[in-house]
Amino acid sequence: MSLRLNCDLGESFGSWKMGLDEAVMPHIDQANIACGFHAGDPLVLQKTLTLAKQNSVTIGAHPGYPDLVGFGRRSLKASADELKAMVHYQIAAIDGMAQTQGLTLTYVKPHGAMYNDMMADAAVRATIMQAVSDYHRPLVLMLQSTPQSAQHQQEADSIGLELWFEIFADRCYDDDGKLLTRSKPGAVHSKEKMLAQVKQLQEQGTVTTVSGHTLTLQADTLCVHGDNMDGVNAIQEIRRLIS
Amino acid sequence: MSLRLNCDLGESFGSWKMGLDEAVMPHIDQANIACGFHAGDPLVLQKTLTLAKQNSVTIGAHPGYPDLVGFGRRSLKASADELKAMVHYQIAAIDGMAQTQGLTLTYVKPHGAMYNDMMADAAVRATIMQAVSDYHRPLVLMLQSTPQSAQHQQEADSIGLELWFEIFADRCYDDDGKLLTRSKPGAVHSKEKMLAQVKQLQEQGTVTTVSGHTLTLQADTLCVHGDNMDGVNAIQEIRRLIS
Amino acid sequence: MSLRLNCDLGESFGSWKMGLDEAVMPHIDQANIACGFHAGDPLVLQKTLTLAKQNSVTIGAHPGYPDLVGFGRRSLKASADELKAMVHYQIAAIDGMAQTQGLTLTYVKPHGAMYNDMMADAAVRATIMQAVSDYHRPLVLMLQSTPQSAQHQQEADSIGLELWFEIFADRCYDDDGKLLTRSKPGAVHSKEKMLAQVKQLQEQGTVTTVSGHTLTLQADTLCVHGDNMDGVNAIQEIRRLIS
Amino acid sequence: MSLRLNCDLGESFGSWKMGLDEAVMPHIDQANIACGFHAGDPLVLQKTLTLAKQNSVTIGAHPGYPDLVGFGRRSLKASADELKAMVHYQIAAIDGMAQTQGLTLTYVKPHGAMYNDMMADAAVRATIMQAVSDYHRPLVLMLQSTPQSAQHQQEADSIGLELWFEIFADRCYDDDGKLLTRSKPGAVHSKEKMLAQVKQLQEQGTVTTVSGHTLTLQADTLCVHGDNMDGVNAIQEIRRLIS
Repeated sequence: MSLRLNCDLGESFGSWKMGLDEAVMPHIDQANIACGFHAGDPLVLQKTLTLAKQNSVTIGAHPGYPDLVGFGRRSLKASADELKAMVHYQIAAIDGMAQTQGLTLTYVKPHGAMYNDMMADAAVRATIMQAVSDYHRPLVLMLQSTPQSAQHQQEADSIGLELWFEIFADRCYDDDGKLLTRSKPGAVHSKEKMLAQVKQLQEQGTVTTVSGHTLTLQADTLCVHGDNMDGVNAIQEIRRLIS
Repeated sequence: MSLRLNCDLGESFGSWKMGLDEAVMPHIDQANIACGFHAGDPLVLQKTLTLAKQNSVTIGAHPGYPDLVGFGRRSLKASADELKAMVHYQIAAIDGMAQTQGLTLTYVKPHGAMYNDMMADAAVRATIMQAVSDYHRPLVLMLQSTPQSAQHQQEADSIGLELWFEIFADRCYDDDGKLLTRSKPGAVHSKEKMLAQVKQLQEQGTVTTVSGHTLTLQADTLCVHGDNMDGVNAIQEIRRLIS
Repeated sequence: MSLRLNCDLGESFGSWKMGLDEAVMPHIDQANIACGFHAGDPLVLQKTLTLAKQNSVTIGAHPGYPDLVGFGRRSLKASADELKAMVHYQIAAIDGMAQTQGLTLTYVKPHGAMYNDMMADAAVRATIMQAVSDYHRPLVLMLQSTPQSAQHQQEADSIGLELWFEIFADRCYDDDGKLLTRSKPGAVHSKEKMLAQVKQLQEQGTVTTVSGHTLTLQADTLCVHGDNMDGVNAIQEIRRLIS
Repeated sequence: MSLRLNCDLGESFGSWKMGLDEAVMPHIDQANIACGFHAGDPLVLQKTLTLAKQNSVTIGAHPGYPDLVGFGRRSLKASADELKAMVHYQIAAIDGMAQTQGLTLTYVKPHGAMYNDMMADAAVRATIMQAVSDYHRPLVLMLQSTPQSAQHQQEADSIGLELWFEIFADRCYDDDGKLLTRSKPGAVHSKEKMLAQVKQLQEQGTVTTVSGHTLTLQADTLCVHGDNMDGVNAIQEIRRLIS
């Protein structure tokens, strides 16, 4: 199976626009749609679903911490009960709105700090896995591909949860399989390096780390960004490469 | 068919408690559950659904304007598109969370200013009716019984929407079938008058207005209040009266 | 005294950018700064104040209804007590932050629906006038210049409140001195018409209405827009015209 | 100088009531007033200031993280710039509203998770100290008395910031001078133990820790709670003890 392309969409809020959703949607496979807690509002959500439908794109819930001003990028120490309820609420909101447009919600990818906390903190990850698994319809959880993916797969298998692992197309990996911190030089690839990373991943299932090592990473989907036209152009080039 | 009892529940928010939900739930038939925009939060919503399930109470979505500080009691001039999307979002949130607990969302009753705007403004009512009708599963809309109910029924019939009409147990009606404004003397009935009003409604299908006229009102359900122990006791007395 | 130029600024929110504040600030006299209820957040407010200071621009509070998703453009039926408190809170927030940067808050201009309600509803206007007048330091209230300005001046005089009247540079006026509704053709002037309107106002103190009548309007300040580069360019041309 | 009593007040929000502010205010010296981010709204803030004025109580800003649903009790990883701006905004809001009532804001006590982060994290503490110090009028910062208070005093002295140290009247201290975790037995004192702790503090300037050791703690003020009538009664007994 070839790599899929996923992208965060529906991140406008009221009068504030963000992202080139119309330009991006035709070129991706999976839309991670904001659910209103860190971005998105009911009308934006509805329009983003319509756009996904028009382009036959698979839709995922992109739940975040309730922090509009921080765009869900600030870790919030919520309890397990709070976290589970806020994930369910956001999944449910998009699920019902999707069905109302004749669409089927397929997966869940936590956003920003919730995503980072899920990857770094086993308790948070357990809560999110359980929340997605407990939802009344089967949903896939999308998370980061790392050297710990086999362990994460075991965690998911034990509760009957399907996982999709994602690689970041434009980010440099360190030797531990983590993303190189953005503040470090080379953390974000040039377009050429990004395309080379995608090609290598597609053909060999590996990435080359910052120090030159080769790292094998399971890759179901590639995360791409459509914040500006450079991003959109890059998505189109990746599309050509992997199709 | 005997009268049902409906009550607004799930109106706590975070650390702020409101309503005696545990005391009320065993005595009512229909729980109007706040959906997070004017009251309720994901965890409160989840717990209120659990409580409804334990008491075999029919659940309804109680969507409101996005105005926590105003508790959804202040009219907000939202566009039809915004209104429809915010109603769908809130219905969907509770629908998915209900299904996750094995429950089925049955109806929708707008809250506060949204309810008042629906009753007073034909355009708002048309938008809400269409929103409920367009939802992917059939849902009943609960609204106020008035001398205009036949017309409202026609409006609903034309789009295949089922309606439930509610009477306020403890409120005095004016000759136009409106609730007497709270600022007027006698607007809120004593317990004795409330029970008499319920009895008359149950037996004759009428209420006696402030000026002594008899008004015929369709009554599917009675709205009761559980804000304090007096309210809970009144609910229990009504329950005995109509069972 | 020559006409001043005022512009709404500080309308970004968290990760969402709005307006070309850096490009606009050097060309205006008065910055209407959002206070966090409909737009702006503490960090945006702080940065906007810094930018105003660097450009020696007079600062005004731009309070709005608490409605981020609606950008304060939806009328909200708040009580007089609520309205007064929300105006004071927003004025105070910017006042203290301005003083912390060595700046002095000079005036208040309500935003969006609060502005429209103030112009259309005498009770709302009385509440806002009283709120501004009651603040512990003298502040000027900016409102729309209309044929009713003399009456508004009387209302303000009676409580010792100073007013500044503003004209919209790019909007066509109807014969009643109201802005022609945006949905009507010709509601928003071309750049040429806008410059002609400003010139006429500067030289003769009048505007030509949609039907060709001449209307005398008191003009202390012109409202301009810096949402995009066309707007910024227009501001620069107006600047040249009136300096 | 005798011990002062401080209490968190103004924590209602819209229709949700919290705390017995009217009952508590006559018995305390210092009111920590919520500023709208974790609790309080403009009208509640205004009314709480009026109540403080009527009782000649010293007023403090009680800023929190922007997290209404979590009541500011969940740690939020805000940047130093964000934290400083949100503290200034909240201080300014109450400062201007206080002055409008002829009151003078005297001090700042961070709330909940912001308070805990300040005590546990030197970087957060440095940011908050700097924020309070940078405000355009001198304000005292209230923080927890611990064995590290001398060091905290040095930190404050270096930027010319005055500190007030507080002891929790009803909480048991561990040997490190931290509050015993609430989940542990004996974490919250009975009324008798609380009064004994206050008496010892007043007379000897020490507390007896959970293991029986004697700990010297600087005490400028005692934190008391007015959530319910038991709390109010306890405050009155403490008042009699220390007056």
